[in-house]
Amino acid sequence: MAGDLSDWYQGILAAESRVASHTVSTPLLESESLNASLGLRLLVKPESLQKTGSFKARGALNFVLQTSPPDDGLFVGYSSGNHAQGLAYAAGAVGKKAHLLMPPGAPSRRIEGTRALGAEVEVLTDFIGRRDRRISEMVAEGAVFVPPFDHCHIIHGQGTVGLELARDAAGRDMKLDVAFIPTSGGGLLAGTGIAVRHQFPACQIVGVEPTGFDDFARSIAAGSPVANEQGATTLCDGLMSPRPGTLPFQLAAELQPDFTTVSDSDVRQAIGVLFANFNLVVEPSGAAGLAAVLKAAKSLQDKTVAVVVSGGNIDAGLFARILDGGDVSAIASRKGR
Amino acid sequence: MAGDLSDWYQGILAAESRVASHTVSTPLLESESLNASLGLRLLVKPESLQKTGSFKARGALNFVLQTSPPDDGLFVGYSSGNHAQGLAYAAGAVGKKAHLLMPPGAPSRRIEGTRALGAEVEVLTDFIGRRDRRISEMVAEGAVFVPPFDHCHIIHGQGTVGLELARDAAGRDMKLDVAFIPTSGGGLLAGTGIAVRHQFPACQIVGVEPTGFDDFARSIAAGSPVANEQGATTLCDGLMSPRPGTLPFQLAAELQPDFTTVSDSDVRQAIGVLFANFNLVVEPSGAAGLAAVLKAAKSLQDKTVAVVVSGGNIDAGLFARILDGGDVSAIASRKGR
Repeated sequence: MAGDLSDWYQGILAAESRVASHTVSTPLLESESLNASLGLRLLVKPESLQKTGSFKARGALNFVLQTSPPDDGLFVGYSSGNHAQGLAYAAGAVGKKAHLLMPPGAPSRRIEGTRALGAEVEVLTDFIGRRDRRISEMVAEGAVFVPPFDHCHIIHGQGTVGLELARDAAGRDMKLDVAFIPTSGGGLLAGTGIAVRHQFPACQIVGVEPTGFDDFARSIAAGSPVANEQGATTLCDGLMSPRPGTLPFQLAAELQPDFTTVSDSDVRQAIGVLFANFNLVVEPSGAAGLAAVLKAAKSLQDKTVAVVVSGGNIDAGLFARILDGGDVSAIASRKGR
Repeated sequence: MAGDLSDWYQGILAAESRVASHTVSTPLLESESLNASLGLRLLVKPESLQKTGSFKARGALNFVLQTSPPDDGLFVGYSSGNHAQGLAYAAGAVGKKAHLLMPPGAPSRRIEGTRALGAEVEVLTDFIGRRDRRISEMVAEGAVFVPPFDHCHIIHGQGTVGLELARDAAGRDMKLDVAFIPTSGGGLLAGTGIAVRHQFPACQIVGVEPTGFDDFARSIAAGSPVANEQGATTLCDGLMSPRPGTLPFQLAAELQPDFTTVSDSDVRQAIGVLFANFNLVVEPSGAAGLAAVLKAAKSLQDKTVAVVVSGGNIDAGLFARILDGGDVSAIASRKGR
């Protein structure tokens, strides 16, 4: 058992007071004309505007502000994407250095971006095979390991997304009916789910996974963590973790979220809608939540629906191709808001 | 004389309490790695995230919340762009209808966007020649004319951009050295200039105009409003007003801003930097302020520099072409933040 959810909520509150001066309190965006065309009230929480372009900076900050290596010791982590930049930024915020293990396939921009934030990057061939061993070595030498999702500090930090979202919604006298949350290891799902349910106990929480990467949904259905099948591919490079984190799984088992999947085509369409209606640059993983809403719009009529847009770090070429495709013009004609 | 600047500041404060529940308090964004590469501290105020995608909603709201036509009377305005959507949204917020005169060359998306917000759109051939006469007719029939910039209610509303910006900066113990503001009719320049100077009396205010559309700079230099030369073109379709507004000119004459110009190429580069470092979709006019900063970076070393990103309503095709061009890869490699 992961413990009492109200203790977890207190942990999220404490995380907020810890990280707030280093993070952006992202706004809650709404488009009157998109609401009208969908027949529901949509609230978008754009973590694409967060420091380092994703929510990952929150959890990393909440970790490094509580657990620090001595003197010139390092924080160490592994990531092919947003956790790398989040941890690099967080380490810099406390005057420390981060060492990131990244796979050879990581986009060069991600690697450069992590370095530009002052971190050391070590590209590991045989990333999966070597990663844990390399971390053990560094921890033995005094480094502090910052995991991507399976740690209470990380989950508390990611929960601040839900805290802000729920508070802003309540401050505008809204009642959230459903919240859609992109789901991979489950840190964001668990933390944000707890914070949203605290404010809105009846709110339905929906974890969104890419088709072929529905390990979290299958794990909750099975009652224990199961892994993804091999061989699937997805545009959502941030939602490919092979199995749920242990703590996020336990928390989700208490929260009892629903789950849904989205295809690459669903995600491309959602990227176009976010561009056209909110002027947001969103990466595929970040658009998964809205993709699920667009698919389910008919069953969400007249509801107040929140979507966490988890990150925006997409390559210029891919973004341009998506805008140039038919996806945008089909549904997302610029409508004003 | 336009009156005492401290009275204008009070008007901006009153506007904020009036419009706040209908607008987004846009965040103040900062990228540590971009700061490091530019050698200055850059603060970005993204009004691209504002209702209707530009700051124009603020002024229109502050107007319609104070002056309303009787019963089913209309608000009337003219615009080829963002003021149309801003006024359509504002009218809807007070339960009224807006009637917008638009030129035949206005992008169909802008026209559709204005209609999607519930407004009537009348496309006027011979827009410049017929516009004022058509407005007089409608006002004679009971409509209320909402001008794009030359009115105290509008200037007070646009000033709330500067109010939020200055308050957020002061709240983080920053002192603004320079603020760059895209300038056309001058409503944003005057309102935001007044609010920023109230908080930071020594702050340099820089109005940014497109090359060939430097009427405001030349007017201030000449001591009276002068018009642009005919025949110039610019990508910045929101910064093409032929001459300064009377009130904005008078206020600017008191504020004594500096001025600078930017080319289309400067603006394309700035759009790429805003994409790569902040995940923002910004229209050419909205990127003019950052374009000026990138040009002047060497003379701004170690300064704290604010930029108003005035709007984000760019066509998907143009945005995709800019991202695909050399502009982005040249300077804006994704750096993390």
